[in-house]
Amino acid sequence: MTQFPKNIQYLVFTIFMTVFTNHVNSQEHPNLILTKSGVEKIRAELGKVPLFDTSLAKIKDEVDIEIALGIDTPIPKDYSGGYTHERHKRNFLIAQKAGVLFQILEDDTYAKYIRDMLFQYEAMYKNLPVHPQPRSYARGKIFWQCLNDSNWLVYMSQAYDCIYDWLSIKERKQLEKKLFRPFADFISVENPQFYNRVHNHSTWGNAAVGMIGLVMNDDELIQRALYGIKDAKLDFTAKDDDGGFLYTEGKAGFLANLDEPFSPEGYYTEGPYYQRYAMYPFLIFAEGLHNVRPELKIFEHKNSVLLKSVNTLLTLSDADGEFFPLNDGQKGMSYYSRELVTAVDIAYHFGGHNPQLLSIAEKHGRVLLDDSGLAVAMGIRDGKSKPFKKTSINLADGSDGKQGGVGILRYGDEEMTLVFKYAAQGLSHGHYDKLSYSLYEKGNEVLQDYGLARFVNIEQKGGGNYLKENTTWAKQTIAHNTLIQNEQSHFEGKYEIGSKHHSDLYLFNAANNDVQVVSAKENNAYPGTEMHRTMAIIKNEKFEKPFLLDIMKVTSDKENQYDFPFYFMGQVMKSNFEYDSPNLDILGKDNGYQHLYLEGKGKPSSESSTLSWLNNGNFYTLTTATNTSDELLFTRLGANDPEFNLRRDAGFMIRRKNSQNTTFVSVIESHGNYSPVSEFAVNSNSNISSVELIHEDKNYTAISIKDVKGNEQLFLLSNTDASASKKHTLSINNKEYSWTGAFHYSTIN
Amino acid sequence: MTQFPKNIQYLVFTIFMTVFTNHVNSQEHPNLILTKSGVEKIRAELGKVPLFDTSLAKIKDEVDIEIALGIDTPIPKDYSGGYTHERHKRNFLIAQKAGVLFQILEDDTYAKYIRDMLFQYEAMYKNLPVHPQPRSYARGKIFWQCLNDSNWLVYMSQAYDCIYDWLSIKERKQLEKKLFRPFADFISVENPQFYNRVHNHSTWGNAAVGMIGLVMNDDELIQRALYGIKDAKLDFTAKDDDGGFLYTEGKAGFLANLDEPFSPEGYYTEGPYYQRYAMYPFLIFAEGLHNVRPELKIFEHKNSVLLKSVNTLLTLSDADGEFFPLNDGQKGMSYYSRELVTAVDIAYHFGGHNPQLLSIAEKHGRVLLDDSGLAVAMGIRDGKSKPFKKTSINLADGSDGKQGGVGILRYGDEEMTLVFKYAAQGLSHGHYDKLSYSLYEKGNEVLQDYGLARFVNIEQKGGGNYLKENTTWAKQTIAHNTLIQNEQSHFEGKYEIGSKHHSDLYLFNAANNDVQVVSAKENNAYPGTEMHRTMAIIKNEKFEKPFLLDIMKVTSDKENQYDFPFYFMGQVMKSNFEYDSPNLDILGKDNGYQHLYLEGKGKPSSESSTLSWLNNGNFYTLTTATNTSDELLFTRLGANDPEFNLRRDAGFMIRRKNSQNTTFVSVIESHGNYSPVSEFAVNSNSNISSVELIHEDKNYTAISIKDVKGNEQLFLLSNTDASASKKHTLSINNKEYSWTGAFHYSTIN
Repeated sequence: MTQFPKNIQYLVFTIFMTVFTNHVNSQEHPNLILTKSGVEKIRAELGKVPLFDTSLAKIKDEVDIEIALGIDTPIPKDYSGGYTHERHKRNFLIAQKAGVLFQILEDDTYAKYIRDMLFQYEAMYKNLPVHPQPRSYARGKIFWQCLNDSNWLVYMSQAYDCIYDWLSIKERKQLEKKLFRPFADFISVENPQFYNRVHNHSTWGNAAVGMIGLVMNDDELIQRALYGIKDAKLDFTAKDDDGGFLYTEGKAGFLANLDEPFSPEGYYTEGPYYQRYAMYPFLIFAEGLHNVRPELKIFEHKNSVLLKSVNTLLTLSDADGEFFPLNDGQKGMSYYSRELVTAVDIAYHFGGHNPQLLSIAEKHGRVLLDDSGLAVAMGIRDGKSKPFKKTSINLADGSDGKQGGVGILRYGDEEMTLVFKYAAQGLSHGHYDKLSYSLYEKGNEVLQDYGLARFVNIEQKGGGNYLKENTTWAKQTIAHNTLIQNEQSHFEGKYEIGSKHHSDLYLFNAANNDVQVVSAKENNAYPGTEMHRTMAIIKNEKFEKPFLLDIMKVTSDKENQYDFPFYFMGQVMKSNFEYDSPNLDILGKDNGYQHLYLEGKGKPSSESSTLSWLNNGNFYTLTTATNTSDELLFTRLGANDPEFNLRRDAGFMIRRKNSQNTTFVSVIESHGNYSPVSEFAVNSNSNISSVELIHEDKNYTAISIKDVKGNEQLFLLSNTDASASKKHTLSINNKEYSWTGAFHYSTIN
Repeated sequence: MTQFPKNIQYLVFTIFMTVFTNHVNSQEHPNLILTKSGVEKIRAELGKVPLFDTSLAKIKDEVDIEIALGIDTPIPKDYSGGYTHERHKRNFLIAQKAGVLFQILEDDTYAKYIRDMLFQYEAMYKNLPVHPQPRSYARGKIFWQCLNDSNWLVYMSQAYDCIYDWLSIKERKQLEKKLFRPFADFISVENPQFYNRVHNHSTWGNAAVGMIGLVMNDDELIQRALYGIKDAKLDFTAKDDDGGFLYTEGKAGFLANLDEPFSPEGYYTEGPYYQRYAMYPFLIFAEGLHNVRPELKIFEHKNSVLLKSVNTLLTLSDADGEFFPLNDGQKGMSYYSRELVTAVDIAYHFGGHNPQLLSIAEKHGRVLLDDSGLAVAMGIRDGKSKPFKKTSINLADGSDGKQGGVGILRYGDEEMTLVFKYAAQGLSHGHYDKLSYSLYEKGNEVLQDYGLARFVNIEQKGGGNYLKENTTWAKQTIAHNTLIQNEQSHFEGKYEIGSKHHSDLYLFNAANNDVQVVSAKENNAYPGTEMHRTMAIIKNEKFEKPFLLDIMKVTSDKENQYDFPFYFMGQVMKSNFEYDSPNLDILGKDNGYQHLYLEGKGKPSSESSTLSWLNNGNFYTLTTATNTSDELLFTRLGANDPEFNLRRDAGFMIRRKNSQNTTFVSVIESHGNYSPVSEFAVNSNSNISSVELIHEDKNYTAISIKDVKGNEQLFLLSNTDASASKKHTLSINNKEYSWTGAFHYSTIN
């Protein structure tokens, strides 16, 4: 090696140290999800916290296998589900884990793996054109959409953060200049139509830019993440692939995405499936901000909405932890997902150590390998876990909590759960399903919300993306358990109209466990028509299980045809009316009707029409008050579905023609059980003999329910005044009833 | 009380004691499933055998609740599923348990309960007409069919046995004279058309008569049970409700029912669902005979066929313990049923303490409260349990084991299970499904056997009895994964013809776990046409999971239309051929075709047609060699089903018209997985690029399977000589292949 004069050596050393010291002093690494002190604590606890140790071992196994297989960064080519998409996705997930392993285990193998991978990306990225697949409104480079590129950067920032100090300055410079900064610019300033929105897509974009900004200590990027691109030129009438408006003037950046779609209590307007998806960037970036920019007090923002939203999301699940598929939501997604591991651990650690969250973490069986995961694992080890209690709850929608909402009524230990939707449109993933509902017994659907028409990430099914049946069926009103007027969807199925309106809560009262009521009104779905739906879960001592009472009062300025479907799950057992079986009819031509076969068409034989079915070993009976002129239709999904994108699910429907004002009154009862092993059929018959609308006017609705032994129940409802203190008097058949409050339930034996 | 002279008192006393002593000396009680010494042993072990103690506690709880509710013996009125039916059924089940509790706990409450119930029956029975419901060929009195009356007596005999000594002589006399003997006569000599058959119905009848005979020490009844009614006058051309012949001359009684339907290795010709049903009377009566008439050596009868049959039945189940629904079988019935608790406990106790049976008993979580249950519980307590190993097995059918059979190929720990049926007709519950099969991955059906069209004991569905769709669909050939010629069922769907024939095994070889083969021929289903089907489970190292190779060689004396269906379970993912979607067609007019909608109709686009689907988180792909003139049909069950008795299951079908000799060659591959929680789609594409029939003549069939990387596998089959030592030479495309044995599998990389 050439000898330089001492003074030159000294000069170089001084310059180097100045640069270096400034850099390291300005900011410690890691600092995003791990901190220097946190890592020290983790190392000190290794071997002493079982759930943390097993989580670490599992991740180590997973990463070690990937390292053994070698790094592959193929030239981008495929949609989701295809090889290049799945490979790049796996790369960032594994790199993030390798980073954490490097910090905890101090084994250079992991750092080298990340470094080598990052340099492969760096080598590829600088000449990379936009992704060849054209379907997105914002094409990425590594992936077919900027959304997935943002996923990549959110995870890779963490990996980079973990090896930051281990890399040479030169390496860091090269990566930042040639990979990270251009990458962050591409998904933001070069794609403002993606970046500057209030939408889960933008949340990912904002977090990605912000997180790499935090690692690089790049204030410009951090500002861009928090507040959006200041002077972005955008067409505010444009719509995205899902049919939603792309931009709202003046609203962009991470904080806007936190303020807008969340209600004050943490309900996310797109629904739980997308809330789950957005939770990860929300919380992981918040964790980074908390660590690097504590002065922002991000977890206290908007009354701690981020932490509240985790509880809200958990309560939006059935007894198996599966999220209610409100709006676009893939069934089966649950609080077992990796995003919820992140959400629950962070909410526990930064949200006051709620012991109920520990029971969810126990179900996860794994924790994050960071300060929050350690806290959770220690809490569980120390026996602090308590069951997560899901109760009846009314969740308001809208950033101010004034745009309708979702009412959940629960009986017992989720023995019966009603999910009643009277929310706002829910952005581009919203469905046209005002006053719709789904009903659960434990983790099983009794009456379903169809969910979405998509097989997420399954390449064979339309590249894993939304299928056209999502628009032609899943979003349409007829796909839901609510009223359809003249075979038209709510708001004509138009987003521009739907997004201007929301339903209004009339009443939510779950104070009496045995008579829980939710009620809401919708006046805009069909101009000139008002819908007022009241749903109650009632447990009467003469009934084995609780039942659902459903009152849909319709008032219109003209005569219409009303369709009122019930998407029951299971095998038909029996009905009390006559019907023909046409075999070969399709119900309609559009608005979703083109997908329904007609399997049966009948007329009521009595004033209470009944249909019973069997599902998952339980019997169910619908008893509904019908007119002699009603048509009763059995439907089956699957017509005009050449690609087999839809399930062949059953439906039952009341069709009431030439009606102006009318009220649909129904009871859905769960009773008995059947086991194919014992072959015992217990309590297989309904306990109800009739459901009758005994009074109806502008001000009052009164229902009588009679059981098979002749006992009667009355449900009286004030239609116009929901105040709890208001006194009401109503005369029915010369008998006078008086009560206080919006409704009254009584039994006459 | 009036004083009698001392000598009169003495005389009466002497007479009484003589009668009494004769009686009690002649036979101890209890003696059926409990013995005096057994009960003493049980009492001594109380509190020391956990599974026995918990079983006892559970049954005590159950019986105590029933006793508290009081006894109800309503006037018989309903079919199964209705109140009177279910009440009487519950009565005999509870009485039997109460008897056991009385013996073990020595608490008179239980004895009184049984006595009072029996006297209520006695009071009712003497004037009881036949049951009002007319549907059975042999109407009972308590129930609508003698079958259920026999169930009653099988259980009530046990209850009576337990309190026999506790009752007074007078009480016993009254019960025996007014209830039990007339009851036994009614179901036997008054209903020979029910009693004197070879059929599971008669087995119950025989056991009922025999068991009450054993308790009453009535040799006439015991002889009648063992050998049938000697001089019954019967019409040997008559058929029962299920379409089976009622009688076979000279064959009747319990021993005939043991000899005829069981093969030497214990396969029951009606199939596992009915074997399960018949196991209870077979084994419980056998236990009684063993105790009271040990000289009969009933458990050693026909080479211990009864004990063997328990193992055979257990092996006829999937990984979840659910029985394969061969012939009429309700899906979901499993080895968790009460009949199997009896069967497994008795087989363990009397069959040499096979430790593998203990693991099934552990799954039961309960044991019989008798000597056998005690033995099982003690075995488990002492840690003797070993896993029940299910292996590939060929089960011959027929009393001599020479009437075809069922071949089961299993790979790994039930990762893939093929159930291949080449059996006899299976009596009246048989289906017309020669050379049919079903395929399982663990406990999930990949290609299904439809099972039966019946909702057992669910009153709403045709009284819980067989529905007409069982005949019009479930029994028909088109309902199965086998060949249909000219849209006709095998044997014209006629029992008279079908019951004369069976298929013949050509080959069964499971010696090499990675290449397991079963092959059979059927020459009678369609006169003039020969079918030879060969199925292999193959595990190739280049494949993630094993696959199924299916070769169906058809040779006919004339041109026919051949339909070849695949009843795949799950959601269609992708196919490689074009098809139209007619929406509104029904496939045919009869033989089951009237129940199938046509959902798609296409033509092959290549020589290997593929269809992939997703089910239970696994991907599956069918790759089948097709001709350009083949039609490819998507079907959906549910046409002409006005009562919604059928499931809306999917099917795929190759239709080959105007063909004389032809061979269908297909591969069914399981690959990859999908989780709606992780949303990862792993290995979702088939690994196969082509399946080709590369040679076909009278003597040899050769198949080539190529994977997507170009690797080739060859399967060569001798069609006429299955001997293991035979040397074969075959030239294909000028290349010579030589091998020894019926088939040869090789890979070319």
